[in-house]
Amino acid sequence: MSVADDKKAVVLLSGGLDSATILALARKEGFQCHALSFDYGQRHKGELKAAAAVAAAGGAHEHRVATLGVGFIGGSALTDLGLSVPQAPTTGIPVTYVPARNTVFLAVALGWAEVLGAHDLFIGVNAVDYSGYPDCRPEYLAAFETLANLATKAGVEGGRFHIRAPLLHLTKAEIIRAGLGLGVDYGLTLSCYAPNDAGQACGACDACRLRAKGFAEAGVPDPAIAI
Amino acid sequence: MSVADDKKAVVLLSGGLDSATILALARKEGFQCHALSFDYGQRHKGELKAAAAVAAAGGAHEHRVATLGVGFIGGSALTDLGLSVPQAPTTGIPVTYVPARNTVFLAVALGWAEVLGAHDLFIGVNAVDYSGYPDCRPEYLAAFETLANLATKAGVEGGRFHIRAPLLHLTKAEIIRAGLGLGVDYGLTLSCYAPNDAGQACGACDACRLRAKGFAEAGVPDPAIAI
Repeated sequence: MSVADDKKAVVLLSGGLDSATILALARKEGFQCHALSFDYGQRHKGELKAAAAVAAAGGAHEHRVATLGVGFIGGSALTDLGLSVPQAPTTGIPVTYVPARNTVFLAVALGWAEVLGAHDLFIGVNAVDYSGYPDCRPEYLAAFETLANLATKAGVEGGRFHIRAPLLHLTKAEIIRAGLGLGVDYGLTLSCYAPNDAGQACGACDACRLRAKGFAEAGVPDPAIAI
Repeated sequence: MSVADDKKAVVLLSGGLDSATILALARKEGFQCHALSFDYGQRHKGELKAAAAVAAAGGAHEHRVATLGVGFIGGSALTDLGLSVPQAPTTGIPVTYVPARNTVFLAVALGWAEVLGAHDLFIGVNAVDYSGYPDCRPEYLAAFETLANLATKAGVEGGRFHIRAPLLHLTKAEIIRAGLGLGVDYGLTLSCYAPNDAGQACGACDACRLRAKGFAEAGVPDPAIAI
């Protein structure tokens, strides 16, 4: 069964809480969702397993993993084993920031969207309860949308790309409530920057703290945490 | 020996005529050049061999090859073996266009530059004797520069990225003359979209035609062509 191109979307799927929610939101809007994850040398592969589970449970039409052999870049605690993931709050842009990550992810998503004939790219960035990364800000997303429409054959020929970030202005608690209302199984998701070998969250890193705060404010237990 | 960050540059190096010229131009400006090539599933690997030779001969400080495992994207005659490279002129955006290629390349270059502390990204795009790709236009480059300064920690903290495209408004003949004046050995470069197994140019594809026209107009023989 084919769908109209304007009902196809590429959804960036990390396997975390936010991306599981945007998949559900895109499906709610009626999009045929082409989920895209990245193996970019992140220090734990648990998030790719989580992404596959989330894609399957969330009704993605397909799920692809793009491999980026860019290990020489380094520079982030998420990819460089020589740097430690902080286990307490820090100020400023944190060491877990991966240089230009969202730009690379969106660029690959754009290329795939162009081939699919899709014009909607969903990304689960958030400017409220976020980690202070520059490429999660509204002005960054607007600049990428402008770029996308200049960069591509589809843009030049009248197609109109949209960078869709429906979580941008939501708190973590609001994101969780929205997802629960759409039946998202957050037990499949993994947000932690530094899980143990069994894939269990550390509970102390920035991502774990934001997630715990979100579930606490939403007034529901986190199903991913075995008590 | 270390150099000031403002004298480091990332240079996108395909191994073709244009990228060999920008490496020479960046070196002339005194930059320590970090050359970057991509293995993205292009149908011939000859250009990566050419890039390595050009980097060495052109005085690059280092040369890295980023591997992009994005074969599922398809959609271009340069990566998809099911599509033929045209051997005669075509109109419109050609089938050799790789979706979002320059966006992906510049995004990875941006990430590397941020880690290196470089703020200058050199790219050999050209808006005169070019193949009609949307991501070779001045407005595209300007949009990427805006994006780069929003996307990055270095941008937010006051660093200022520059997308440097010194060939943008030159004809192919002017590019060749500039390179020859800087000692570029064009015998090492490979421009062809569809070389034979021995790495010899086909002479008929769009890239070969533009190159031949350039050398003819410059009034010099192409050293890459064995007579």
